[in-house]
Amino acid sequence: MQSVTLKVEGMSCNHCVQAVEGAVTKAGAAGKVNLATGSVAVEYDDAKVSLAAIKEAIEDQGYDVAK
Amino acid sequence: MQSVTLKVEGMSCNHCVQAVEGAVTKAGAAGKVNLATGSVAVEYDDAKVSLAAIKEAIEDQGYDVAK
Repeated sequence: MQSVTLKVEGMSCNHCVQAVEGAVTKAGAAGKVNLATGSVAVEYDDAKVSLAAIKEAIEDQGYDVAK
Repeated sequence: MQSVTLKVEGMSCNHCVQAVEGAVTKAGAAGKVNLATGSVAVEYDDAKVSLAAIKEAIEDQGYDVAK
């Protein structure tokens, strides 16, 4: 299991939290957003899902993931 | 038909727009949010729904309506 904290720009409210955490979940990982720091802590199994796919799922919701 | 523009605090993203406009619609009125000004333009028939009920519907979504 891998853990990474991604910086996500544009999260501003609890709906954003749900959108981002939902995207991570649908991608097959687990995510916990920290609105105060503008970040999401992600745990994933890199045998099942790539970090790139997780980032893409977040970006598909309209948020920018910092490189 | 009555028209009023309400100041709504805490709207920060498009999810907020949808939550507030949806609340106004469910209350039986029509609302159009302007995120830049933090306001929602509401049109309603005061024979069918009260302004108080519209404000309450918005507040039930977690936003503050200015007095």
